[in-house]
Amino acid sequence: MRKIYVIGLGSGNPDHMTIQAIKALNEVDVFFMVDKGAAASELIDVREEICRRFIEDSHYRIVRARNPERDARSADYRHGVEEWHKARAAVFEDLIRDELGADECGAFLVWGDPSLYDSTIRILQHVLAQRSVSFEYEVIPGISSVQALAAAHKIPLNNIGEAVHITTGRKLAEGRMGDAESVVVMLDGENSFRSAPATNSTIYWGAYLGMPDETIIAGPLEEVADRIEEVRRTLREKKGWIMDIYLLKQERDDA
Amino acid sequence: MRKIYVIGLGSGNPDHMTIQAIKALNEVDVFFMVDKGAAASELIDVREEICRRFIEDSHYRIVRARNPERDARSADYRHGVEEWHKARAAVFEDLIRDELGADECGAFLVWGDPSLYDSTIRILQHVLAQRSVSFEYEVIPGISSVQALAAAHKIPLNNIGEAVHITTGRKLAEGRMGDAESVVVMLDGENSFRSAPATNSTIYWGAYLGMPDETIIAGPLEEVADRIEEVRRTLREKKGWIMDIYLLKQERDDA
Repeated sequence: MRKIYVIGLGSGNPDHMTIQAIKALNEVDVFFMVDKGAAASELIDVREEICRRFIEDSHYRIVRARNPERDARSADYRHGVEEWHKARAAVFEDLIRDELGADECGAFLVWGDPSLYDSTIRILQHVLAQRSVSFEYEVIPGISSVQALAAAHKIPLNNIGEAVHITTGRKLAEGRMGDAESVVVMLDGENSFRSAPATNSTIYWGAYLGMPDETIIAGPLEEVADRIEEVRRTLREKKGWIMDIYLLKQERDDA
Repeated sequence: MRKIYVIGLGSGNPDHMTIQAIKALNEVDVFFMVDKGAAASELIDVREEICRRFIEDSHYRIVRARNPERDARSADYRHGVEEWHKARAAVFEDLIRDELGADECGAFLVWGDPSLYDSTIRILQHVLAQRSVSFEYEVIPGISSVQALAAAHKIPLNNIGEAVHITTGRKLAEGRMGDAESVVVMLDGENSFRSAPATNSTIYWGAYLGMPDETIIAGPLEEVADRIEEVRRTLREKKGWIMDIYLLKQERDDA
């Protein structure tokens, strides 16, 4: 039976690798590297460093494939993503059938944690549902950027006994903050924190978490929003890409 | 300057330890073990295994202290927790001042991730605010039970582009599910999934995640709620304690 690992690499810092992930890396015959283009070449370098540093026996193969482009013009966001996932499932299916021997072990490496805003698991489930190739798969959790953000700011995510809502910039811009005192926002390309109620709200922002260029800013949303927007723009121009995340927290006098 | 690490150990499986956490462990002069009593002796064993296995030089000290009891009768939950945190802050302050040399490094070890429903960071902040002892502190993220749950069930937490709401059994029982298709419930001693709307809802439940007794159940909430309640009761009776967590997910035909 073919086996596939979905391995969480952690959030940009090779030292986020867990012992479990390192053990899994060392069982892998074929790494499937399905990348989006040149934007994240720095991330590709970190991934290669992880492989070099943690894999003891170099008898593995790397099979690269091009990730289909998502049609960002699709009027319906979910529909656009679903079509894109189907195209990616076809790529994954070909890779697994053509490049992985019947008793071999393959792996997809995922930044952060595979369970949060990553489509690898969903696409593997889609491939399995097609029944044209069979395999078992196992998920290895990794440190997510949510956790790296909280650790960098040295704060708990939740207020005492209160909820934590993890959402997207898109939902935040729609005003959907989930009735929580702590809202973590991912996948925000549009400075959507601008649309959050600023009263009594503190923002904890971080970019390139875990990497040498890690940059964090925290403060009352009203006071630091301009600075975050400016730093964000400057960093993105300088490096050509940005990965950032933030927590909006209603401060209470917990202590 | 005194230094304190707050180190996330991951969720019950010693292989959840990150390289970053292992490096931090090896810098520590004094481990502060502040425990609640006998209930979690199995967890104490795992923690000791982690120290034995990952610390190369055994020249560290362990200082144990008794965690003050929380007054569960307090009518106001938050007030009760705050009073308890103050009592714990007094214990932490004494430990740091009396047991840690001026240039030494201390550590508090935390199950899961220190940023989620753990009070260690909050209590250290409270101690610092008292200004009677000074130190710097650093937070090392760890694999949380939320991630271990998703990995055990081999699922993504979020539906495509949708939010994930992490909350407590208490809030769920109050009907506060945060307007999200995915709701992760922690700290639920009361089978509060009973109070969630069952229509089209799938529950992914897990207990003792990452440990040899890991037990998971998944299915439509209406169909498996009885079984989870029964298994939960049986396991708790057998082992004397239980740590569990679950995800309630509105299923959509994502693929």
